[in-house]
Amino acid sequence: MNIREESLKKHYEWQGKIEVISRAKIETKEDLSLAYTPGVAEPCLEINKDINKSWELTRRSNLVAVVTDGTAVLGLGDIGPEAGMPVMEGKCTLFKRFADVDAFPICIKSKNVDEIVNAIYLMSGSFGGINLEDISAPRCFEIEKKLKEVCDIPVFHDDQHGTAIVVGASLINALKVVNKEISKVEIAICGAGSAGIAICKHLFNLGAKNITMVDSRGIVCEGDEKLNEAQKEIAKLTNRALKRGTLSDAMKGADVFIGVSAPNIVSKEMIASMSKDAIVFPMANPTPEIMPNLAKEAGARVVGTGRSDFPNQINNVLAFPGIFRGALDCRATCINEEMKIATSYALAGLISDDELNENYVIPSPLDPRVARAVADAVIEVARKTKAARI
Amino acid sequence: MNIREESLKKHYEWQGKIEVISRAKIETKEDLSLAYTPGVAEPCLEINKDINKSWELTRRSNLVAVVTDGTAVLGLGDIGPEAGMPVMEGKCTLFKRFADVDAFPICIKSKNVDEIVNAIYLMSGSFGGINLEDISAPRCFEIEKKLKEVCDIPVFHDDQHGTAIVVGASLINALKVVNKEISKVEIAICGAGSAGIAICKHLFNLGAKNITMVDSRGIVCEGDEKLNEAQKEIAKLTNRALKRGTLSDAMKGADVFIGVSAPNIVSKEMIASMSKDAIVFPMANPTPEIMPNLAKEAGARVVGTGRSDFPNQINNVLAFPGIFRGALDCRATCINEEMKIATSYALAGLISDDELNENYVIPSPLDPRVARAVADAVIEVARKTKAARI
Repeated sequence: MNIREESLKKHYEWQGKIEVISRAKIETKEDLSLAYTPGVAEPCLEINKDINKSWELTRRSNLVAVVTDGTAVLGLGDIGPEAGMPVMEGKCTLFKRFADVDAFPICIKSKNVDEIVNAIYLMSGSFGGINLEDISAPRCFEIEKKLKEVCDIPVFHDDQHGTAIVVGASLINALKVVNKEISKVEIAICGAGSAGIAICKHLFNLGAKNITMVDSRGIVCEGDEKLNEAQKEIAKLTNRALKRGTLSDAMKGADVFIGVSAPNIVSKEMIASMSKDAIVFPMANPTPEIMPNLAKEAGARVVGTGRSDFPNQINNVLAFPGIFRGALDCRATCINEEMKIATSYALAGLISDDELNENYVIPSPLDPRVARAVADAVIEVARKTKAARI
Repeated sequence: MNIREESLKKHYEWQGKIEVISRAKIETKEDLSLAYTPGVAEPCLEINKDINKSWELTRRSNLVAVVTDGTAVLGLGDIGPEAGMPVMEGKCTLFKRFADVDAFPICIKSKNVDEIVNAIYLMSGSFGGINLEDISAPRCFEIEKKLKEVCDIPVFHDDQHGTAIVVGASLINALKVVNKEISKVEIAICGAGSAGIAICKHLFNLGAKNITMVDSRGIVCEGDEKLNEAQKEIAKLTNRALKRGTLSDAMKGADVFIGVSAPNIVSKEMIASMSKDAIVFPMANPTPEIMPNLAKEAGARVVGTGRSDFPNQINNVLAFPGIFRGALDCRATCINEEMKIATSYALAGLISDDELNENYVIPSPLDPRVARAVADAVIEVARKTKAARI
């Protein structure tokens, strides 16, 4: 099967991958008077008296906006808001399929940070959460930060945090397989965009101490002229020694390689230069930094990619549906760092020590236990950290 | 049955009256790769090459946004965006029920015209049409006007135009019943808010010549200090003679009374002072300007209200579902005056001369022929006026 051809054919058949339906049966004049005027005045007045009732009387209790500006869609780049919609609709179908979350796709016709923030904020009363998607770095950092300041519902940039959570879960289990401790391993992350930076921060939160960030210009180091604000911050956190060097230099002796960069930029020699029992997560999509079989041949012990046709598929769909399921269930005001940490552990914990092996460090995206386990972890932490309304 | 109590109970059961579902089946890894990565890249690229493909490959082809700022919700006034949502969701259920249009409710947390316009414009690439709802006058005029200037999809303030279209249809048929001509009758419209002004303009477009507008301060007349811009314009159109007077004065000798104002403000005496075979549409909701039985007793020949418990229910639901059905079907760029005129005639034309009588001048909201007839009229005119993309 040619996936792209078949996908295009399917998309013409689907005529859109989402649909808005009515939960209220409207057959008689009486039905009309209950779902619409005059009866509908009563729930309006209830919410007017107590805005929290909007979580009981309108759909925001189960509704997430999936928002993009179309500037960093898949690996396609800045293709525009309308052209980004098939991805947003796809995301919405995954929300529904995996966690029964109603998700609605919205593309924003602007690249201006403040304009985007304002548009999303102004519609935030319609939703229980905001999933940001495919927004280019460094704008995505600023947009998320500003939105979190003004919104009282969770704002979650999935390309950052969803990726980071699933990489974190995979690493927790991979380290068990090779019997190493996260605080002691050397980690090289290739790609200093939104995903790379979020992974780096999240791994610090999971206890990592030694991370080297690399981008297309080499090891990320303070003083580099082309670094954006987020990269400058990460340079300070990761590279106090002001090391300089190439990706090869960063990988030499490393225990863990994480790639969110470009296809085929890692050679077998680079893998061979890593420590014994190396963990290698080349996640560039659809073609990884190094193909899994080559990484294995070069000595890597645990290999995970974004692909469904190799073991250990490190896929965001393991995180975002359950995260928003949990956030909606407890009417969370935000997704905080503690929730993200708990989610990584919850995902990792779905694989028992008996089952755990180098080809099974992360559950399958189709594992039916995943969303509930993630949601429960989110709810528990939300309540502990006072981020839950109920 | 206590409608408000029952409605509240139902709203707690419904947990929101709309739901977003997936049109794509996702059971296997292959399904995932078609609806999401990597397959989804192909429809994205198609739209990137030709933005018109967004009407074939995403749901905007069938999707309307129902947008409010919560400033003029039902008769409840400015109750806030979140509290307006039950009405917006109700509207969305009617769109689906009557015309299979996917409608999605969005409330905007702002009362600033430019901010609202910008927020709606920025998300307009996600939809095939924008239905504005329950926005207070005169802001609603400005918001609609500005949005029409920037959007390439239909923008339609239903409280104005939906009401006007259905009143127009009812009047066309009522005039047949009493055998009078629209160009010759005297019409008094009570209420110079968004609905009253839109009705007035639409009746002019249908051929009316003599309309007197009345608001709570009496006959609308140039020079009144408190008139907003829209009312000043309507004063010029309706009252060149600079008549002054009360509602009673305006109704004396009139052939038609149309009320979109307040309950019980019209007396039997005022009805009795009208011309023979008077047409009386007291549409204040839920309590009309005069109850139908009283109007009849006072000599009115044709009476229509907004209520479902009397004959001739003049209800917007006769217009908006079919209008957007038609607009979406031909990918209209706007809803123009010609379409509104045609829609009134299409609605009126559903009642044959044989069936037509003083208690049946407008079809029932549950008449299954309505939406298609309205849609077909819209499509035909859209093509004639070059407002259709296909």
